[in-house]
Amino acid sequence: MSFSEFDLIERFFSGHANRDDVVIGVGDDAAVLNVPTGQQLVVTTDTLIEGVHFPIETSAEHIGYKSLAVSLSDLAAMGAEPAWATLSLAIPAYDEAWLTGFSHGFLELAKTHNVALVGGDTVSGPLSITVQLHGLVPDGQAIRRDGASKGDLVYVTGTLGDAGLALAGLQNRLNLDPVILKRLRQRLDCPTPRIEAGLALRGLASACIDVSDGLLSDLGHITNKSGVGADIILEQLPLSVDTEQYIANSGDWNIALVAGDDYELCFTAPANNKIESLLKSLGCTCIGKITQQAKIRCFHTDGSLYESGKTGFDHFAV
Amino acid sequence: MSFSEFDLIERFFSGHANRDDVVIGVGDDAAVLNVPTGQQLVVTTDTLIEGVHFPIETSAEHIGYKSLAVSLSDLAAMGAEPAWATLSLAIPAYDEAWLTGFSHGFLELAKTHNVALVGGDTVSGPLSITVQLHGLVPDGQAIRRDGASKGDLVYVTGTLGDAGLALAGLQNRLNLDPVILKRLRQRLDCPTPRIEAGLALRGLASACIDVSDGLLSDLGHITNKSGVGADIILEQLPLSVDTEQYIANSGDWNIALVAGDDYELCFTAPANNKIESLLKSLGCTCIGKITQQAKIRCFHTDGSLYESGKTGFDHFAV
Repeated sequence: MSFSEFDLIERFFSGHANRDDVVIGVGDDAAVLNVPTGQQLVVTTDTLIEGVHFPIETSAEHIGYKSLAVSLSDLAAMGAEPAWATLSLAIPAYDEAWLTGFSHGFLELAKTHNVALVGGDTVSGPLSITVQLHGLVPDGQAIRRDGASKGDLVYVTGTLGDAGLALAGLQNRLNLDPVILKRLRQRLDCPTPRIEAGLALRGLASACIDVSDGLLSDLGHITNKSGVGADIILEQLPLSVDTEQYIANSGDWNIALVAGDDYELCFTAPANNKIESLLKSLGCTCIGKITQQAKIRCFHTDGSLYESGKTGFDHFAV
Repeated sequence: MSFSEFDLIERFFSGHANRDDVVIGVGDDAAVLNVPTGQQLVVTTDTLIEGVHFPIETSAEHIGYKSLAVSLSDLAAMGAEPAWATLSLAIPAYDEAWLTGFSHGFLELAKTHNVALVGGDTVSGPLSITVQLHGLVPDGQAIRRDGASKGDLVYVTGTLGDAGLALAGLQNRLNLDPVILKRLRQRLDCPTPRIEAGLALRGLASACIDVSDGLLSDLGHITNKSGVGADIILEQLPLSVDTEQYIANSGDWNIALVAGDDYELCFTAPANNKIESLLKSLGCTCIGKITQQAKIRCFHTDGSLYESGKTGFDHFAV
């Protein structure tokens, strides 16, 4: 039996979304795509490495899901609508069960967000997954990192710290109840890309980023690019019951401030009652405000300062 | 000293082409790009793994060059004009000399072809490079694989077999004179993407592919997609002096037929004196013709059949 790279792509990765704007998809030297007039192209790429971006024992299905989810999260942070993906997959050997699981996780999420897989490359090598994702945004409406102004409020979607808590449990840095760990792990393995929130934020948010390296690190990109600072109120941080309990017991706010992998959106918007109500109705939580001084400070509600002493994850920090 | 991923990208990869159509480049969650009205987007992605796509002792500069060259070659095969690239780089550790060499090789070629680097991801892991390249082609003018018709002539650009011969020498499968090996190795490490030829072929070629896995394998994609076959005349294959000499001594035509990595274009065009003259003036060589029977046959000029017995490189052939 001969089983080629071309068969592999066709066999495992044909069940993605069909889109009319795909002129040529997988199976030629390159894909050919129609970008509608009045729309700008939004492009992001992410590489996931075993043991770095997901624990080695992560299921193939969750790896497939997450490898697309992290790129969807980048598009969400730009206010872009997902459209087309390419996938570069390095695998040590042909493994039917693994490929079945991986492609299922990837393709189910692709269908959910109407993403067509238009190109790919499969090679033999240490497990490594690179997804490039293309989205569309009306001309001039992409949400940048550099638009935050003094007085803007700082918001996040969802809850913070769950993925970091799960990772700490998996790595035996914390001793967690197995039921709680299982629940938290869902957040680590299957983060929800906030595409709908990102689309809703067009024209509302002054700056936006997704929280992949940790809140302080990622909000730091907004404040650095915008030439501002921020004051955060710890007790306003949105937390799951599990993470709230952990912080109540440990006093360790860093799990919500510097642990990454939550893939929530952190964004700023003008302080305005109408916008505040709208964002609240979208499930967003106000966690602080933009200041003039070029640093991020964390306060308790009683006004006392909390020194985190840490920043977020960096692959090459020395 | 702290040296972050963001510094890394800014430090080593800022010297690429500047393009007016880049609205947001490196440094946000995603790039934002303007696709001109009347143009279609052409997208390709390729992953290069050490020891698979380049010998382990390949210089960082040549790895940087080749990682972009192979994607440029895909765009050439579509008749597309290069525009924007993203780069995902997994490296085992921060190595200033290696990054300097790699980025130099990558960026010099990017500038040559007016390619802007608009996004990237750097992670720690076994050496692996994924480049995604975007090009533009006027609506409907992309050159596909499925347009070859019976009676069309088959052409290639440049010469075939040099890269395969170099690899065989490097792997000690052949004993080559060091001067010859050095000359051939230039073709293996630094293939010339045939962008100009690809642009010239718009409206002329009926089908096109780049020769990465070997002539028979890649021409096979054209014939399979087009539902035709092809007859090739061995003595018409364009060869360098070194490869011609090797074949004269060994009778081993497979070095030109099944060895990959040449990154020349293989294409078909209607049999027409005017087109033939034009293609000849572009440096293209006619090597055979498209037939009705669904297979590729190789003949000597005396009419005798040559049985290759091999196909091209496949990562997952078992």
